[in-house]
Amino acid sequence: MAIEQVASQEAFKALVEQIQGGDNYRAPVGFGIARVDRGQKHSEKILQATYPLINWEENLGSAAIFLESLAQSGVNIDTTGSEFVSVINREFVQNAMNAFAPYIEEATGESHKNVQVIKHLNELFQSGHVSETDYKICFLFEDAKPQSVEAVYLKLYALSLQKAALRSLNLDGAFGLLENVAWSGNMPIELAWLRENEIALKLDGMYPEIQSVDKFPRYLQHVIPADNTRILESSKVRMGAQLHAGTTVMPGASYINFNAGTTGPVMVEGRISSSAVVGSGSDVGGGASILGVLSGTDGNPITIGQNTLLGANSVTGIPLGDGCIIDAGVAILAGTKIHISETELEKIKQANPEWKPQSSDYFKGKELAGLNGIHFREDSTTGEIKAFRSTREVKLNEELH
Amino acid sequence: MAIEQVASQEAFKALVEQIQGGDNYRAPVGFGIARVDRGQKHSEKILQATYPLINWEENLGSAAIFLESLAQSGVNIDTTGSEFVSVINREFVQNAMNAFAPYIEEATGESHKNVQVIKHLNELFQSGHVSETDYKICFLFEDAKPQSVEAVYLKLYALSLQKAALRSLNLDGAFGLLENVAWSGNMPIELAWLRENEIALKLDGMYPEIQSVDKFPRYLQHVIPADNTRILESSKVRMGAQLHAGTTVMPGASYINFNAGTTGPVMVEGRISSSAVVGSGSDVGGGASILGVLSGTDGNPITIGQNTLLGANSVTGIPLGDGCIIDAGVAILAGTKIHISETELEKIKQANPEWKPQSSDYFKGKELAGLNGIHFREDSTTGEIKAFRSTREVKLNEELH
Amino acid sequence: MAIEQVASQEAFKALVEQIQGGDNYRAPVGFGIARVDRGQKHSEKILQATYPLINWEENLGSAAIFLESLAQSGVNIDTTGSEFVSVINREFVQNAMNAFAPYIEEATGESHKNVQVIKHLNELFQSGHVSETDYKICFLFEDAKPQSVEAVYLKLYALSLQKAALRSLNLDGAFGLLENVAWSGNMPIELAWLRENEIALKLDGMYPEIQSVDKFPRYLQHVIPADNTRILESSKVRMGAQLHAGTTVMPGASYINFNAGTTGPVMVEGRISSSAVVGSGSDVGGGASILGVLSGTDGNPITIGQNTLLGANSVTGIPLGDGCIIDAGVAILAGTKIHISETELEKIKQANPEWKPQSSDYFKGKELAGLNGIHFREDSTTGEIKAFRSTREVKLNEELH
Repeated sequence: MAIEQVASQEAFKALVEQIQGGDNYRAPVGFGIARVDRGQKHSEKILQATYPLINWEENLGSAAIFLESLAQSGVNIDTTGSEFVSVINREFVQNAMNAFAPYIEEATGESHKNVQVIKHLNELFQSGHVSETDYKICFLFEDAKPQSVEAVYLKLYALSLQKAALRSLNLDGAFGLLENVAWSGNMPIELAWLRENEIALKLDGMYPEIQSVDKFPRYLQHVIPADNTRILESSKVRMGAQLHAGTTVMPGASYINFNAGTTGPVMVEGRISSSAVVGSGSDVGGGASILGVLSGTDGNPITIGQNTLLGANSVTGIPLGDGCIIDAGVAILAGTKIHISETELEKIKQANPEWKPQSSDYFKGKELAGLNGIHFREDSTTGEIKAFRSTREVKLNEELH
Repeated sequence: MAIEQVASQEAFKALVEQIQGGDNYRAPVGFGIARVDRGQKHSEKILQATYPLINWEENLGSAAIFLESLAQSGVNIDTTGSEFVSVINREFVQNAMNAFAPYIEEATGESHKNVQVIKHLNELFQSGHVSETDYKICFLFEDAKPQSVEAVYLKLYALSLQKAALRSLNLDGAFGLLENVAWSGNMPIELAWLRENEIALKLDGMYPEIQSVDKFPRYLQHVIPADNTRILESSKVRMGAQLHAGTTVMPGASYINFNAGTTGPVMVEGRISSSAVVGSGSDVGGGASILGVLSGTDGNPITIGQNTLLGANSVTGIPLGDGCIIDAGVAILAGTKIHISETELEKIKQANPEWKPQSSDYFKGKELAGLNGIHFREDSTTGEIKAFRSTREVKLNEELH
Repeated sequence: MAIEQVASQEAFKALVEQIQGGDNYRAPVGFGIARVDRGQKHSEKILQATYPLINWEENLGSAAIFLESLAQSGVNIDTTGSEFVSVINREFVQNAMNAFAPYIEEATGESHKNVQVIKHLNELFQSGHVSETDYKICFLFEDAKPQSVEAVYLKLYALSLQKAALRSLNLDGAFGLLENVAWSGNMPIELAWLRENEIALKLDGMYPEIQSVDKFPRYLQHVIPADNTRILESSKVRMGAQLHAGTTVMPGASYINFNAGTTGPVMVEGRISSSAVVGSGSDVGGGASILGVLSGTDGNPITIGQNTLLGANSVTGIPLGDGCIIDAGVAILAGTKIHISETELEKIKQANPEWKPQSSDYFKGKELAGLNGIHFREDSTTGEIKAFRSTREVKLNEELH
């Protein structure tokens, strides 16, 4: 009832095929093995799942081996639901070691990361310094509403590691699954445990340093950014945010929520609220606010195009296209009335050939949503909000013209 | 000259009554035992007082026992001043253990917290791992200007633990009593000591990680928030702030100063300056500023009612009632001239039956201070600031009508 | 080939004169000995240089001793370039100890800090607990474009320690020299190393706590501020910023970049962008933005005078003189059109005797750049931006009148 040591890479492939044709197998959307932090008071509560590696629509051979190794270690696997989570034990690790045998040697650096995970787990289990309750394996068979903390974290990783597009995953109910905990470094602490031990911890001078109390950890607790990405303060980016290489997050008024972020290099000195996405070359100025689905956009997530500039302390409640500018201090909301002169309207139409304006002279913010090359200004002699064709370049979609 | 072991709960009550009738006793407003951090260079300086428990207008039996235990341990107690602070010693702890004897067994969990403090101190003193200079007891007999660091911390705890209302305590001179120190985790370090040891610490690679240099610690260094309260970054809430259960403090531009905070669940993404108070269900939008007594309100603290919305990057320099809205980017100061049409004025009066407007057409911000149900907007075609009856619900005080 | 023990302070002075007349000597602009952090994966990379002490246009006697001690320890010194950096070894330290012999005893507290550095290094090298690759000495012979990480750090220290004026040093190419690293406390970690060890670190539960990913460390990692300076959150001030004594940096939306800061006590609740300088008694209100050379000022660094007030969420893209006010929420950029009445223009001229206005009625922001005593407001009935003579005091430069 255990996987025997596999002799060659061909034998490995044959084994995978055999498993994939069997009853325990269903191709997962995503899977991974996590180290879990459990409640200090309620050890059945999972407070955090740390994945050294996640697989997302990839590595189905490893998925097959993991599922079979689990089955052969005595776990009843249910692949009929949207997800399956289980603790792993020594037998699981031994089974996987046996199956991965032809790859163990070469599993270093960037090669065979799943094998590396098993190799290291094998060392840990052999050292005896770990508990079998410390590790869990999680399979997502569908992108459905998550049922477990492990599934929520797997999805947050998929977003933060750019393996899934922002706003593409089902995170319904994720907030409800996560425990609100005190974070001391990377360690989550149950608030109830802290309360129960407050007197002793404080009198002993051992009260922990708490950086935050939140359901989510910070991005940098789990994710290693690209070499040219900079995050000047870890609290500014929540786990589940996505930062494209070359993005810089300054420590002033900035913040990037989960399921929000950048799809190219972006300078971030303002707020990218939940579900907001900012494109390559854009600049979110100091204190600028991009409203989120929970804060003023009636549930419509905002996309900001490429090469767009949000001035310091500006606010946008509408999506913007490429090459736009909102001047410092100007707020453009869905209902803001904006004046456009005939000349400028002509230029804006040229930058947006598909756009069929329904008004003239005055437009509501939402009528200009997503347009390219618009410069929003406040006339400082009249207080009027006006839109002009911006001086910034707009790259028209060649496929459309 | 020591308290003898008390045999029963009845005997305990008799002892308390006897002490309360004696010369050493005066009912304190607040009291508690703190672990203190002393200066690394000037050990007579108290840099921080950490209370595992504070008593505020409660537990006078324990106060009596503590005062008597202190007197019997050789301390001359002066109850004539507004506060009394003393180190405690083994005799004090033994006296209190003897007096609390009937409760020692059952002092666990939520029961008999003062007894739990003494029990744990007794263990510590018996273990020999502590110094008698590490602990102090502080009694406040009146809410007067604090005279000691211990008294300042006791009051900050009373505020942060919601045992005293915001703005209700005398904190005159508190800034002057607190030392400006470097905080490394929960440990305060004297700047002079750091300077004296800079060369050795840096060459040894042992220079401490400093999170802040301030007179005050952070709220989360001392206070465990409610299960549904979230503080995404500890620097955002100063010790002495008060956060009602369900409040969320985001990590962007937010900040809550001491003696300021929330009286119900509030979403905080902006600044709640010193002495400002925000009511249940309100929302302080990203980058919104509520001016403080030290920054633009002429010393008048601002109260924001319930269910009021401060838009992103808005500013208020006036108090607001329930159900108000300030649009994103709009600043309403005491002197801001605001236009109200006749129709809207009628509606606003209905929402504020006691209000007797002294103007028509144009109002200064301060004339609208504290009113309910007002929506402040800037007309984007004319730049005029206008007030309307908001769409948000106002619950009229039934007792008044 | 080694420096012999010097017998007296006279002999020391003679030795210094002899060295300064020799070939190995060139008077440096700045110099110091740093502990360096090397790459975990690429040990040739210097990730950080921590100076216990820097010398800036001072202590040339110590410079002479250090240069000679280095030469006598076998290092080929090149004083022809703009800078020279070398590791130091036991012989260097012994040579310097011998030269400093007459001062060793009295080198404590504030006296003979360079001697203190050598004394402590001597203890460390004798203890055998250090590596010779841990320490480097850096000489800057000219304020040229830095060539090394050590030189960049020496300049950042000169700025942060107020030994060189803001904007006075050549930092061209500094960004390119510094490695982008993950900061765990004061320790920089190579991102490549973190990636290589991610699986093991995470499975072991030893993944480091990362506070930021940046090329620069934080000011408080290297600098001890004055007793009355407060920085409520270390991420808010980058290394290379300069904070004059009495400056307070709040934790809301504030940020001070490198080569920017204050020249007197200033309350900072907003952003002081790179190259911006704020004068004594001024107040950068909550969320206020001073644009930087990289963000909207066309490369012209902004200076704010004394006693000037930037209201909450205001923005300035122009320099301001003394005693100015920008109202909360108002943005003054180079191109903003500003109305000034005849009466107010007269008053403004009186406060700025040298100013020769080129316009009347309406002025562009840049025409008012650097003027004293101006109050910028938005008329809330018309939306017009207007300038008035402010109510704040302006101290005219007596030398000019």
